[in-house]
Amino acid sequence: MNDNLTAERATFVTHLECSLTGERYDADTLHNLSRAGRPLLVRYDLNGVAAALSRDALDARGTDLWRWRELLPVRRTANVVSLGEVETPLIPIPKSGGANVWVKDEGRLPTGSFKARGLVMAVAMAKELGVTRIAMPTNGNAGAALAAYATRVGIETIVFCPEDTPEVNVREIAAQGARVWRVNGLIDDCGAIVAKGAAEGRWFDFSTLKEPYRIEGKKTMGLELAAQLGWRLPRAIFYPTGGGTGLVGMWKAFDELEALGWIGSERPRMYAVQAAGCAPIVRAFEAGEEHAERWEDAHTVAAGIRVPRAVGDFLILRAVRESGGKALAVGDPAILSAADDAARRDGLLLCPEGGATLAAYRQALRDDEVDEDEEVVLFNCATGLKYPLPAADQRLDRHAAIDFDRL
Amino acid sequence: MNDNLTAERATFVTHLECSLTGERYDADTLHNLSRAGRPLLVRYDLNGVAAALSRDALDARGTDLWRWRELLPVRRTANVVSLGEVETPLIPIPKSGGANVWVKDEGRLPTGSFKARGLVMAVAMAKELGVTRIAMPTNGNAGAALAAYATRVGIETIVFCPEDTPEVNVREIAAQGARVWRVNGLIDDCGAIVAKGAAEGRWFDFSTLKEPYRIEGKKTMGLELAAQLGWRLPRAIFYPTGGGTGLVGMWKAFDELEALGWIGSERPRMYAVQAAGCAPIVRAFEAGEEHAERWEDAHTVAAGIRVPRAVGDFLILRAVRESGGKALAVGDPAILSAADDAARRDGLLLCPEGGATLAAYRQALRDDEVDEDEEVVLFNCATGLKYPLPAADQRLDRHAAIDFDRL
Repeated sequence: MNDNLTAERATFVTHLECSLTGERYDADTLHNLSRAGRPLLVRYDLNGVAAALSRDALDARGTDLWRWRELLPVRRTANVVSLGEVETPLIPIPKSGGANVWVKDEGRLPTGSFKARGLVMAVAMAKELGVTRIAMPTNGNAGAALAAYATRVGIETIVFCPEDTPEVNVREIAAQGARVWRVNGLIDDCGAIVAKGAAEGRWFDFSTLKEPYRIEGKKTMGLELAAQLGWRLPRAIFYPTGGGTGLVGMWKAFDELEALGWIGSERPRMYAVQAAGCAPIVRAFEAGEEHAERWEDAHTVAAGIRVPRAVGDFLILRAVRESGGKALAVGDPAILSAADDAARRDGLLLCPEGGATLAAYRQALRDDEVDEDEEVVLFNCATGLKYPLPAADQRLDRHAAIDFDRL
Repeated sequence: MNDNLTAERATFVTHLECSLTGERYDADTLHNLSRAGRPLLVRYDLNGVAAALSRDALDARGTDLWRWRELLPVRRTANVVSLGEVETPLIPIPKSGGANVWVKDEGRLPTGSFKARGLVMAVAMAKELGVTRIAMPTNGNAGAALAAYATRVGIETIVFCPEDTPEVNVREIAAQGARVWRVNGLIDDCGAIVAKGAAEGRWFDFSTLKEPYRIEGKKTMGLELAAQLGWRLPRAIFYPTGGGTGLVGMWKAFDELEALGWIGSERPRMYAVQAAGCAPIVRAFEAGEEHAERWEDAHTVAAGIRVPRAVGDFLILRAVRESGGKALAVGDPAILSAADDAARRDGLLLCPEGGATLAAYRQALRDDEVDEDEEVVLFNCATGLKYPLPAADQRLDRHAAIDFDRL
C-alpha cells in the first residue's frame, strides 16, 4: 500500500538562494522574488538525503509525486495535499514520431495538466507558511490547478486570465472554488494586476517563479523520468516553454540526482519549444543574449506557451545552452498538424503545446539536430480534451434504408 | 523499470462460458454472445495462476493495468497494446462526501475514461484473433477509447452514437482515426445498426458485453482496488451503471482473487447507481425481477448511464443482490449538485456519472443504507473536463481603475 501521503519522512531544505546572485535566504519563511528581482531556488542538504534514502528504498515506494518527499520542501506531513498525482506514463508514438520517441503524458495529472505538479507543492507550502489568500495570473491550466489545491486546503484564491482564455479553463477554475476574472490583455498584464494587489498586501503573489516552490514541484518531471527509465536519461527532451519552470526544474532535478549518485553526469539536450508567434526565448537564444526581451503581439493556438516575458528567462537559456540543446520555434500550422497526426496515427490526443514539441522534434530531425536513433522524450503538458478539436458531423437516419457500403 | 508491456508471462485462459447456461466455448476463437444470446465469461486456470504468481511478485510490478497479465486473456505479448493505463488514484472527498469516502478517479486513464480498461483488452484480443474491422454503438467515451486503441493496432473502426452525444466526444472519436456517425436514436438504436452490419459480415460487433473481453479489462478495477487497499476491499462500492460491465467485472475479479487466496470471502455491498430518468435496473431490482425491461423515454444529464436496456441485466442484478447492495436511482438535480459540491469543496471535478455516485451515496446515508463510518469507494468513470461546466464570466478592464476590494 502506498503511504507516500501519510508517512513521516525526514526533510532536508537548508536555505533558498537567488538564482542570479547566489544570495542566501532563510527557508521556512514566505518569499517571492529575491532582492535582485529574480527567482529563488530551494537548496537541500543532499548528503543528508543520500544518507537517509537509497535508490532501492525509493523504487519500493508508490510512484506518485510525493514519493520524492526528501527532495521536496514540505516539512510537515500534515501539510501534504493531494488529488492523486500519479506518475505520468511514457507513451511511444512510433507512427507520428518514430521508433525512439516517447510522449510523457502530463494530462493524467489532477486538473489535466502538468501545472498540478507545481501548484500542489506551492499550495502545500503556502499552507505550511500560513498564507490565507493567493492571487495568480494564468493562461488557464495553472489557474485550474491552483483552484483545486487551494480549495482543498481552504485557501482563498483569485485568478486573472487573458480575455481569450478558453471557456473550459475559466469554468474549471470557477467550478473548483476560485474567483476568476477575464482581463483585456495577456498573461503579463494579468501578472501586473496580481503584483499590484500583492504590493498592497491584499494577497500572496503566486506567479510563475515568483514564489519558490512551484519549481520544486515541476522538478519531479525530471526525477520521475530518471526513475521510469531505470536511472538514466533520454538523449533529448523537447519541452513546451512558456514561463519555463518545468525546464528549469528538470535541469535542477538532474543536478540533484547526480549529487545523490543516482545518475551520472550525462544530460539530455534540452530543447525549449516555443510558438513562432511568441518566441522570446528563441530570439534571445539565437542572438546569444542572456535575457529575453518581451515579445510584442504574441499570438499562437498554443495558449499555454503564449508568454511574452519570462521572469526566469536567463535560467531557461542557461539550461538549454549548458545541455547542448536549442530554443526552437514552430508555426501554428505545424503544431496543429503534428497534434492531428499523433491522434490519427498513434491514437494519442495531444494538447497544442504537446503538438508543438512533436512539430519541433520533426523540424530538428529534418535539420539533423537530432538523429532518429536517439531516444527522445516529448512533454505533452495537458490533456488534449481541454482544447477544440476539428468538427466531425456525419449523420445517419436510422429510419431510412442504410447504405452500409458508404459507412 | 516497469516491464509489464514487454515481459513474457504465462497465460491461463481455459475456456469461455455462457453466463446464463454455463455452456462451454473454446478460447482463442472469435465470439460474440452465447447461443442463448447472453454474455460469455472468460475462465482461467486459477490454480495455475496461483502457482505462477504470488501476491508479493505482483506487488513488485509496475502498477498499470497490464500488471495483471496472468488474469487477462491476451496470449501473445506482441498483442499487448497500451496508451499508458495507469493505476487510477483513490482520492478522499472529506468535505463533500465524508471522512471515509474515496473517489476512484478513472478519468486518468487514456482517453479520459474507464472505457479504456475494457477497450484496451478487447482491442488487444481483436488483434490477437485477426479482426480487421470493428463497429460499436457508444454514448461517447467507449467510442473514444475504441478509436484510440484500434488506431494504434491498425484496425478499422466505425462508431455510431446517439444524435445528442456531446460534440467533444464525437470529435475525439474522429480525431483518433475512427469513422463516426450520429444516429437519430438512443444507444440501443445504434446497437441495432451495428448488429445488422455484423450479421451481414461487414464488421465485428464490439457492443458492451457482446464480445467477451471488455469485461476482462473492466475487472481490473476490482483487482486494482484490492491491491491499492492492501488486499482488502471497501465496505461498499457505488458504481454508475449503464451496461454494467464494470460492476459485473469487479464482482468476477473478487471471486478470482478469493480463489487465488489473495483476499477473503468478504465482499463490498455493490450499489448500482442509475439516473431517475433511465433506471431499468433499479425498477427490476425493486420488483424482484431477474431481467430488466427496456426503459422508455430515457433521459438524464449523465449520458454515460443512459442505457435503456442492458444485455447483462441479470448479471448486474445478481451481483448487486449477492453483495447485499441495492440498485439506486438519483435525479439530475441531485447529480449536478453533488458534482458541483465535490469540485467547489474538495477541488475534485467529477463527471455527471461520478456525481451520480456521490448523490446516491448521500441518499443511502440519509436512508441508513450505509453508515458514515463505513469505508466507501465511489467510481468517477471519466474526467469532468469532457462535460459542460457552469458559465463563469467576470470581466476586468485593466485600463480602468481597479477596485481591488470587489475582486
